[in-house]
Amino acid sequence: MTFSRRGGREKRVAGAIRQLPFTRLVNPYTPIEILSADQVEAIIDGAFTILETRGMRFLEPGSRKLLVAAGAEAVDDLGTMRLDRGLVREKLALVPREFGLRARNRDHDLRIGGKNLVFTSVGGPAFVNDLDKGRRPGTHAEVCDFLKLIQSLNIIHQESGGPFEAMDLPPETRHLDLYLAQMTLLDKNCQAYALGGVRTRDCIEMNCIAMGVTREQLAEDPAVMAIVNTNSPMQLDIPMTEAVVELATSGQACCITPFTLAGSMSPATLAGTLAQQTAEVLGVMSFAQAVRPGAKLIYGSFASNVDMMSGAPALGTPEYTKAAFASGQIARRLGMPLRSSNTNSSNMVDAQAAYESEMSLWGSIMGGANLVYHAAGWLESGLTASFEKLIVDAEMLQMMAEVLRPIEVNADQLALESIAGVEPGGHHFGTAHTLAHYEHAFYAPMVSTRQNFENWQEAGSLDTARRANALWKQMLAEYQRPPMDAAVEEALDDYVARRKREILP
Amino acid sequence: MTFSRRGGREKRVAGAIRQLPFTRLVNPYTPIEILSADQVEAIIDGAFTILETRGMRFLEPGSRKLLVAAGAEAVDDLGTMRLDRGLVREKLALVPREFGLRARNRDHDLRIGGKNLVFTSVGGPAFVNDLDKGRRPGTHAEVCDFLKLIQSLNIIHQESGGPFEAMDLPPETRHLDLYLAQMTLLDKNCQAYALGGVRTRDCIEMNCIAMGVTREQLAEDPAVMAIVNTNSPMQLDIPMTEAVVELATSGQACCITPFTLAGSMSPATLAGTLAQQTAEVLGVMSFAQAVRPGAKLIYGSFASNVDMMSGAPALGTPEYTKAAFASGQIARRLGMPLRSSNTNSSNMVDAQAAYESEMSLWGSIMGGANLVYHAAGWLESGLTASFEKLIVDAEMLQMMAEVLRPIEVNADQLALESIAGVEPGGHHFGTAHTLAHYEHAFYAPMVSTRQNFENWQEAGSLDTARRANALWKQMLAEYQRPPMDAAVEEALDDYVARRKREILP
Repeated sequence: MTFSRRGGREKRVAGAIRQLPFTRLVNPYTPIEILSADQVEAIIDGAFTILETRGMRFLEPGSRKLLVAAGAEAVDDLGTMRLDRGLVREKLALVPREFGLRARNRDHDLRIGGKNLVFTSVGGPAFVNDLDKGRRPGTHAEVCDFLKLIQSLNIIHQESGGPFEAMDLPPETRHLDLYLAQMTLLDKNCQAYALGGVRTRDCIEMNCIAMGVTREQLAEDPAVMAIVNTNSPMQLDIPMTEAVVELATSGQACCITPFTLAGSMSPATLAGTLAQQTAEVLGVMSFAQAVRPGAKLIYGSFASNVDMMSGAPALGTPEYTKAAFASGQIARRLGMPLRSSNTNSSNMVDAQAAYESEMSLWGSIMGGANLVYHAAGWLESGLTASFEKLIVDAEMLQMMAEVLRPIEVNADQLALESIAGVEPGGHHFGTAHTLAHYEHAFYAPMVSTRQNFENWQEAGSLDTARRANALWKQMLAEYQRPPMDAAVEEALDDYVARRKREILP
Repeated sequence: MTFSRRGGREKRVAGAIRQLPFTRLVNPYTPIEILSADQVEAIIDGAFTILETRGMRFLEPGSRKLLVAAGAEAVDDLGTMRLDRGLVREKLALVPREFGLRARNRDHDLRIGGKNLVFTSVGGPAFVNDLDKGRRPGTHAEVCDFLKLIQSLNIIHQESGGPFEAMDLPPETRHLDLYLAQMTLLDKNCQAYALGGVRTRDCIEMNCIAMGVTREQLAEDPAVMAIVNTNSPMQLDIPMTEAVVELATSGQACCITPFTLAGSMSPATLAGTLAQQTAEVLGVMSFAQAVRPGAKLIYGSFASNVDMMSGAPALGTPEYTKAAFASGQIARRLGMPLRSSNTNSSNMVDAQAAYESEMSLWGSIMGGANLVYHAAGWLESGLTASFEKLIVDAEMLQMMAEVLRPIEVNADQLALESIAGVEPGGHHFGTAHTLAHYEHAFYAPMVSTRQNFENWQEAGSLDTARRANALWKQMLAEYQRPPMDAAVEEALDDYVARRKREILP
């Protein structure tokens, strides 16, 4: 790595890393609509029909009892439940259109729904990757490094419930180490690792300790959300059911996300995939509202396709973009906040990783998503979390945030006098107007270079990933832990120690 | 290069290169609007005010006479002309909202304006670049290779008037060799190299020969368009004036493109830059309509910014995206077709090249551009044409074309019966519905890989640029020259030989 020495001509690495301040984003644009109003109705009607006739399988017996009590019909011994559209509509009316999620630092509180837009870091990969050590199973120390960067990158609003698995820790208690790291290394909102009731409950308890609130207070002012994946097609498994029960009961939020890859987990058509995705969301939504009326939910869209030559997942595709636009229309029609993602199928941080991510981001943001999951750090169809991709994505997210900032039009911005004062064929470099505006006029990039070819070549011909590699190391070196009361930290440590003894005596 | 041997597991390189067929694109989406209607009016009012008070400089004396005859006021001896808004509005009413551009192969004819969308290859760089030979001044043989690829890539609708300079040919007659190559190697529409009247006239004459039409017929059924850059701020130079005269007089088309980089060639604000850009377009528009009422024109937007730390051009920025949205609103309000571009400032085909290109493409296409210039092949703020970027851009353009294709919603596409037939938690791989749809269900990429990490690593861990390198070589090897009547080719050869003798006796 020679960047830190030679790259100094851009005054980037020598000083602090330039980035935008932490800002809650509001999307000012009318979402892009790919479906006609009739098509939206036809897809939602299809979803109702699927729930009424094919039905959805609920593997957890308690959930079936609750659904029967709510008016659903048990079809077989395997857990298939039919829900008629009257029941689904009745439950849908209970879903809040917008809700808040608090953070330990209240300056980092979030709003979900409406025109609000939240960027969440990558969650769930099996591997970690960086240019120095390559692709590998991750450790808890590396998870902590990743979390520090998520705290440091202002454009990331929310942590994801673990950036990747810490394979050096026992799986039964790994979630406790993750929560402790989240709560001590970040003061942003962090998601739960919601695989089962125990892990979800531990997250809720530790949030109460970290924030110094009771469970009742947390229900009033929620802090916990988790991704609830269905087992597509048309099934909710037991661990996810437990998570829904814990979250809904305690007034926290669920993002219901079917895993509908068209051609494998759903039909090889977008309309069919969207109908099935909507049916699965509505099925789980109905259950969550039966658990607790008014449960806070998000319509999660992950619809993409498989590569029909190999059966491999294909992310960041044109189909992904179109499904995101359509899902936004469906979610708004249903009155639910929308989650989408920043996805790609590349194995490295190259042009493909960037253009597939952009296709996902434009689909998500112009589709009206309220929460973009995996917004920073995802690689390789979600198998890997990448340190360099985290930085490159943060740059792309900052650029999108700038696109969401309106253009000011007034006498000062129109600059007609300044234009009148510059000679035709001349330039605006030294005008009073330019001098008054230049410092904050334009987006200042973090990892993009505007060096000319000769200077760039002299500086080592570094590609974007190499420059990102230097940046995350600098950011890690400059990381500052947010303050935490010593008594709170001790209480968290005690909780983790006690729970570890209980789980692995 | 090992890709052609090992990459065969994706069945790409072994067979013919997969690509979408040549299709005239129509943009079905409502453009994204960043300005309110009042803001659009304020910017256009600002442009009128600039032309009425500061005025625009026309360096060519004949153009000044024509403008005075049309009602403009000559302010000084340097060529500054003031045009009042009455005059500009009168001329604006003469601009056609839509027009056709024919190609040698009529299947490749184009429509400019309305909801039509045309992708044009990169035009004008000083250098050429590929991974084998690096960045260098180009030769005519290399220009011909690039032209063959433009012919072969179906997603590219129009050639740009020369992808880069052929530095091994004398500058006085280089345009003749370019035109001969365009007309024999392609049967798509090709732009003129409109630096001065002579070069523009030669293009018109050779198009008449190539298509077997008279100048009158060509005026009725035009084939020639060229980019007319103003010398921003607020100046039109002599060679560009001559091009406008030749093109307008002969019924061919001009794309008027100011070079307004905010902070250098225009104020360091977007509103001021858009007002100045609009003033320059309207100044040249008024002149072109004075030359010939009904002259076919395009509003060219190139508004971006400079890097305020170095003064270097910054392309593919959030400001570029926002200016493209705004320019679309302004052009539609004026009733003119819009040109925008696919730009970036990267020095290599890496993540930055891709995400800046995507920011440009989404700005252009969702801004409602009718023509995207530099749509494929541009690198390094326009200093270089890249063989690998040409392929990567073609992939990005194909993905955008797919996003423009509506979602079908009908009983077959909704697939409710097929969904009913699949077991919950099962899969759709082998269903009759999947088998019936899978072959054409989803976009099949050209250069993107969906190989899993292990296979990709075994195949050499090739990044997108490396894979593109193999693809353009294969495409060049497979290139087939479109048919041309021997007599026509002979007539073109004779014209070029005669003109070379006249220019360099």
